[in-house]
Amino acid sequence: MSQFEFTHRRKNPLTGNWVLVSPHRNNRPWLGATEKSTPSNLSEYDKTCPLCPGNQRANDVHNPTYDKTFVFTNDFGALTSQTEVHLAQLETNPLFEIEQATGECRVICFSPKHNKTLPELPVNEIKDVVDTWKQHYIELSGKYACVHIFENKGAVMGCSQPHPHGQVWAHNHLSTEIQLEETSQREYQQHNGSSLLGDYVDHEIANGERVVYQNDHWLVVVPFWAAWPFETLLVSKDDVRHFGQLTDDQSNALAEAIKVLTTRYDNVFNCSFPYSMGWHCAPSDLENDSHWRMHAHFYPPLLRSATVKKHMVGYEMLAESQRDLSPETAAKILQNASDTHYTEGNK
Amino acid sequence: MSQFEFTHRRKNPLTGNWVLVSPHRNNRPWLGATEKSTPSNLSEYDKTCPLCPGNQRANDVHNPTYDKTFVFTNDFGALTSQTEVHLAQLETNPLFEIEQATGECRVICFSPKHNKTLPELPVNEIKDVVDTWKQHYIELSGKYACVHIFENKGAVMGCSQPHPHGQVWAHNHLSTEIQLEETSQREYQQHNGSSLLGDYVDHEIANGERVVYQNDHWLVVVPFWAAWPFETLLVSKDDVRHFGQLTDDQSNALAEAIKVLTTRYDNVFNCSFPYSMGWHCAPSDLENDSHWRMHAHFYPPLLRSATVKKHMVGYEMLAESQRDLSPETAAKILQNASDTHYTEGNK
Ligand SMILES: O=P(O)(O)O[C@H]1O[C@H](CO)[C@@H](O)[C@H](O)[C@H]1O
Ligand SMILES: O=P(O)(O)O[C@H]1O[C@H](CO)[C@@H](O)[C@H](O)[C@H]1O
Repeated sequence: MSQFEFTHRRKNPLTGNWVLVSPHRNNRPWLGATEKSTPSNLSEYDKTCPLCPGNQRANDVHNPTYDKTFVFTNDFGALTSQTEVHLAQLETNPLFEIEQATGECRVICFSPKHNKTLPELPVNEIKDVVDTWKQHYIELSGKYACVHIFENKGAVMGCSQPHPHGQVWAHNHLSTEIQLEETSQREYQQHNGSSLLGDYVDHEIANGERVVYQNDHWLVVVPFWAAWPFETLLVSKDDVRHFGQLTDDQSNALAEAIKVLTTRYDNVFNCSFPYSMGWHCAPSDLENDSHWRMHAHFYPPLLRSATVKKHMVGYEMLAESQRDLSPETAAKILQNASDTHYTEGNK
Repeated sequence: MSQFEFTHRRKNPLTGNWVLVSPHRNNRPWLGATEKSTPSNLSEYDKTCPLCPGNQRANDVHNPTYDKTFVFTNDFGALTSQTEVHLAQLETNPLFEIEQATGECRVICFSPKHNKTLPELPVNEIKDVVDTWKQHYIELSGKYACVHIFENKGAVMGCSQPHPHGQVWAHNHLSTEIQLEETSQREYQQHNGSSLLGDYVDHEIANGERVVYQNDHWLVVVPFWAAWPFETLLVSKDDVRHFGQLTDDQSNALAEAIKVLTTRYDNVFNCSFPYSMGWHCAPSDLENDSHWRMHAHFYPPLLRSATVKKHMVGYEMLAESQRDLSPETAAKILQNASDTHYTEGNK
């Protein structure tokens, strides 16, 4: 048992938000019921899927017969590159602050295979995804300050298309989360002369308790301030600030880290583990970005089984995040999960 | 059509967070599908319900045969009043900030009736709920700085017991949200000499576009910075900072406001409208709380029908909240919703 098995709060140094940790809540009678989920029966190609190769999308466009990754502009993106000029009409009262937003939204199909999620792809195909992220990051960060690359996985995470895919939303403004991380990392470097996440990586590697996986270039850790039950941070061990700086070695090592992490996730409850994940990179309009360290957050909602998730609701929305399982216990579960995907084991 | 039908961002002056508004996304082909949900067939008493009068709870305790509201200590609360003293062992590194948390968690059954949600109760029984909130607020704010009174309504909001109830979590520390609102309201008053929410109420009443309902003491408005599709702010029109100051007139008017708002919610999609709602009051340990104005936030997740909700996932978790429906359009829908509950109309 870790030293943290009492009620306490921890602070997220990237955002300033706190999380309430209540490990004794794990003693609820219904703890630990884990259900095997039925194996998915999707086929490699689905003729009704708008993301499969060759198929027709909502707007009469046909997808190419792609064989690696495939990227297209979101047919109903939340952002458009069109510049609009209505702002002159708007109020200037500080209680009614408003600004225009311009950008682009793209969809990235991870592979032609309708039924293969990231952990089910071989490492070299995950590397194709990493290379695609890098390519679109480089292109879009030339036009926009802030490039968000993310994946919603699983219906419970609002993903309506089972064909494995992620998204890129790029825009001129810094989003709320990037602005918070920008401020925290800048201030930390000003006070300490070193990088916040660089120091954090060193501490976690030295301590070991929350480390899930590491290779030459990447660390996967359940962050000390994790809010979601099995939240992890995937962070570069090198001084890499954004995708544009990734070497091929670092990209290969990243593909390996993603393979291991997503495989272990699926093996926790023997199911396709839902999550939202996404990358945080240095904004591209900074003069100096040495306080930044490129990283991804994985926010998976499952708590006790393939079907019981943590609800971030009343208290969490109105006060702050709350968790039952301590981050250290979650790390132990992820450390002990197998690196062989449960569907492979069944063969 | 309102003047806001283009892509933009708005800032929440209480938290400093921004929300991305993309009204054109409403043009997606699947917009507007509204499904009638099947009427609930719960009975007034359920012998298996741990919240019904006279029934046994998990820990062998029997509920009294109550006839108004009924309050008990949460059998598995996230906070306990026990003081624990493990903190000496902990690290003092700013990347590993941790502090103890002490408090109490209570459950408030709104009435003995297993099948009556707030909008289905007569105003005088909603007034009993308001009085119960006030009573427990006064007691707990004598012991703790921060008292969170909230309700998770509906299974989609993590509510596992259908018997209508809310919760109170009280603790010594200020939660993340209360700390943000404390700072924003204090700074606004320092700069402007007036109360942030007082000024906001005046502007919204003068403008009218986002006002859903008002009476002598309360305003219901879709806030300019609303993140959830039908989010509302229920705010005192008077200089009231917390439940301890509520007069009986104000409490009666509050019960009426809750009756109207929750009835209109249910009538939007003819279903029991899920939400998380909760009160934000001045922390009880302030020397001067004149910058505070007591208010409740309602965060309902439904977007297009009784079964299609807004998912706050990838982009929202990693960047900032995003909405399709503009706050002004949501306000219009809530303004036009009937004040007669849809189940009454069916009779
Ligand atoms: O306390 P309950 O009703 O068991 O639990 C519900 O409300 C709590 C407070 O918002 C949340 O922490 C839980 O995730 C949610 O399922
Ligand atoms: O873009 P999609 O996949 O249609 O939609 C999904 O991801 C978006 C970005 O996180 C969210 O805004 C939506 O609520 C979610 O359902």
